[in-house]
Amino acid sequence: MAGSEPHRVVIVGGGFAGVRAATRLAKSGAEITLIDRANHHLFQPLLYQVATGLLSEGQVAPALRSMFRSMGAVRTLMGEIEEIDLEGKVVRGHLLEELEVPYDTLVLAAGSEDSYFGHDDWEQWALPMKTLDHAARIRSHILGAFEMAEQEPPGPARDAWLTYAVVGAGPTGVELAGQLSVLTHRVLRDEYRAFDPADRRIILLDAVDEILPSFAPSLQRRAHRDLEKLGVDVRVRHKVVGVDDSGLDAEGPEGHVRISAHTILWSAGVQAAGLAKILGAAAHIELGKGGRVPVGPDLTLAGHPEVFVVGDMADLEGVPGLAPAAIQQGIYAAKVIAARLDGRPAPAPFHYVDKGTLATIGRQRAVADIKGIRFGGPVAFALWAVVHLFYLVGWGNRVGTVTRWLWSLVARNRREQVISVTSLLSDRRVEERVQSRVDDSEPV
Amino acid sequence: MAGSEPHRVVIVGGGFAGVRAATRLAKSGAEITLIDRANHHLFQPLLYQVATGLLSEGQVAPALRSMFRSMGAVRTLMGEIEEIDLEGKVVRGHLLEELEVPYDTLVLAAGSEDSYFGHDDWEQWALPMKTLDHAARIRSHILGAFEMAEQEPPGPARDAWLTYAVVGAGPTGVELAGQLSVLTHRVLRDEYRAFDPADRRIILLDAVDEILPSFAPSLQRRAHRDLEKLGVDVRVRHKVVGVDDSGLDAEGPEGHVRISAHTILWSAGVQAAGLAKILGAAAHIELGKGGRVPVGPDLTLAGHPEVFVVGDMADLEGVPGLAPAAIQQGIYAAKVIAARLDGRPAPAPFHYVDKGTLATIGRQRAVADIKGIRFGGPVAFALWAVVHLFYLVGWGNRVGTVTRWLWSLVARNRREQVISVTSLLSDRRVEERVQSRVDDSEPV
Repeated sequence: MAGSEPHRVVIVGGGFAGVRAATRLAKSGAEITLIDRANHHLFQPLLYQVATGLLSEGQVAPALRSMFRSMGAVRTLMGEIEEIDLEGKVVRGHLLEELEVPYDTLVLAAGSEDSYFGHDDWEQWALPMKTLDHAARIRSHILGAFEMAEQEPPGPARDAWLTYAVVGAGPTGVELAGQLSVLTHRVLRDEYRAFDPADRRIILLDAVDEILPSFAPSLQRRAHRDLEKLGVDVRVRHKVVGVDDSGLDAEGPEGHVRISAHTILWSAGVQAAGLAKILGAAAHIELGKGGRVPVGPDLTLAGHPEVFVVGDMADLEGVPGLAPAAIQQGIYAAKVIAARLDGRPAPAPFHYVDKGTLATIGRQRAVADIKGIRFGGPVAFALWAVVHLFYLVGWGNRVGTVTRWLWSLVARNRREQVISVTSLLSDRRVEERVQSRVDDSEPV
Repeated sequence: MAGSEPHRVVIVGGGFAGVRAATRLAKSGAEITLIDRANHHLFQPLLYQVATGLLSEGQVAPALRSMFRSMGAVRTLMGEIEEIDLEGKVVRGHLLEELEVPYDTLVLAAGSEDSYFGHDDWEQWALPMKTLDHAARIRSHILGAFEMAEQEPPGPARDAWLTYAVVGAGPTGVELAGQLSVLTHRVLRDEYRAFDPADRRIILLDAVDEILPSFAPSLQRRAHRDLEKLGVDVRVRHKVVGVDDSGLDAEGPEGHVRISAHTILWSAGVQAAGLAKILGAAAHIELGKGGRVPVGPDLTLAGHPEVFVVGDMADLEGVPGLAPAAIQQGIYAAKVIAARLDGRPAPAPFHYVDKGTLATIGRQRAVADIKGIRFGGPVAFALWAVVHLFYLVGWGNRVGTVTRWLWSLVARNRREQVISVTSLLSDRRVEERVQSRVDDSEPV
């Protein structure tokens, strides 16, 4: 009877690795269950464009169900896995409903989350940008800060609403700082009457020696100059040591620095998703750096050839936490599983192919390192745009995105400048401000 | 000195009436302050397309600041007015900051809000659709209900997640029911493994004798038939008498009806925004039907020629609560104010010009009544589309919207199928479900 039952593959995580694995296995004869906390795939590299109002949420986040509509062997479930039973071969969790899903093969691809270096209390003040909800909250917060500034009299309180600190100078931080500059300098210009949006301060901080640490020094310097041309105050060798309700503290080469800012965006560090800890406890293994799971050359867990760990959750020497690496690992895991199902020999060990790295800085500026060929400027930007469009899911999203990009070159308007009033009023800093005013006005 | 100071016009509300008034007055020499709770104008007639995932939030809600960027005389403030001091000529309120704005002329254009006929407790279960936040919540709820259904075993609980009740058969309710049918029958088809989305029930209820009560009987019948062809269960002469956590109760021609439904959308009644009450108390006047403010033929408040009430807040015989009426009133108030500033005689009393009414039902179906010429079908639909594109703000939004409409004719995908996990988990019904499960599983 067991022979007639289809092989059950459970994939946890609908990011780059999980989606590629599911797609590759859709016709393998296996029965695939894809579980994710959200109902959508997320094209993380363009998330900062949602946070800054250029793209809509749907444009970077196609519904997982739509993606797998024609692949009948793949079912998707919204859920959060809280228990992995390696002996019983079942995962358990919940979100909407209690979930208990048995597997023959398990692929863990839950990705990464922001790390606050042991200071989880910073998160309430230093906004993370990992999920679509985060990006929407950042958009409401950034635009809301300008609304606050329009109503505050000139002075330190207003200056704090006009100060944006981005912590972490990897590609995400650099892209975010660059886009913030474009948004405030170009898009929002002339929209406020009480102040000039160009007077805002954007400060990019990182403890590293130079921004974009994974890039070659010549490109780092170029990106650094590009950011400064955009008016971004770049502070490398600044380690953030405190974040609170009115700003942050850093230690720099010239000593202690205090920055009063009501907008702090966090892209400083990542760690493996919490699922890694759950797996570590279940398998009695020690996790690697950033809480990642050590895996063998075939991306499986030691002693559990039926459990794959792929993408940002996996700890593999020489493999960066980037979308192309996650894609390659997802495809590789699917190949191994398909080979086993077909009784074919296992493929050669996983080998990461570095096709190059790209980062964009504001409008029409980017840096590229393609197998040692390093360049910047409009050509790098064009390459960046083509590559990102290529990996975006769905023709509709590609056409829509390229249309908005082209539109943004000629027009200053951005489509998505909606502040969610609900979100803004539940924003900790706005809440504090409103509360302090109420406290002031009430008789004792 | 008073002569050299610019005349201060304060407009409360950034809807159709307020925006038109501000635009018309931008070059009058007056200093204009536009106050709204949100930072965006809202193109209400297309809001249901946001709720059903066809359009993005930004496409129907341009930022007010962007709209008035080039009009230096207009400043916009986010705020909610809580006090009108007619003697001191000042409005007070807050939202982000304490607001106190003095005026020489006041234009009140805060629109309408949903009315639950004295049962405000129904709102937690019967979702209103007046703001962008409402539409986003409805989208998360509708798609979330299908996610719940995918995980529930067959039975009454699952059926309740697959039952959508729309209360109120005016244009909004009809459009919403029609789009729900298209969404579930066409867009989401083949996306679920545990059930067929076409098996959902969509029930449209209203106490009226026929749907679209403001339309001619021939068009009502046509729209009724169109909806039934789309699989909508149309129940006129059904008065909703109760709404609770698992459904609703109605009284129909055949007696009491109980509908178990986890999605209830409310478009049954409107009343003037709360600001009307504040004005009524300040001016010691009695409000008209639906809490609207009685105004004179020049749209001003009796005894207060400097206070205009326009749009859905105004109680004017023979003027419907529709966008074209609000637009005409906003423009009229601006003309009166401009004439006073220039020392010209006042324009003739306000006269509403009925240019016709349109309502759409699902895909490529609509009914139109243009000065007594009544028709339906694709021609009415094309007219509906052209008219709505014409009134949409901004070329970018027009191009983007028409692109998505055309795309939706050929492709089944919809761009905006994002569930906000934060929003879904704070949804009362989902909360209840999750809570009841926790209660069940915990030992007593």
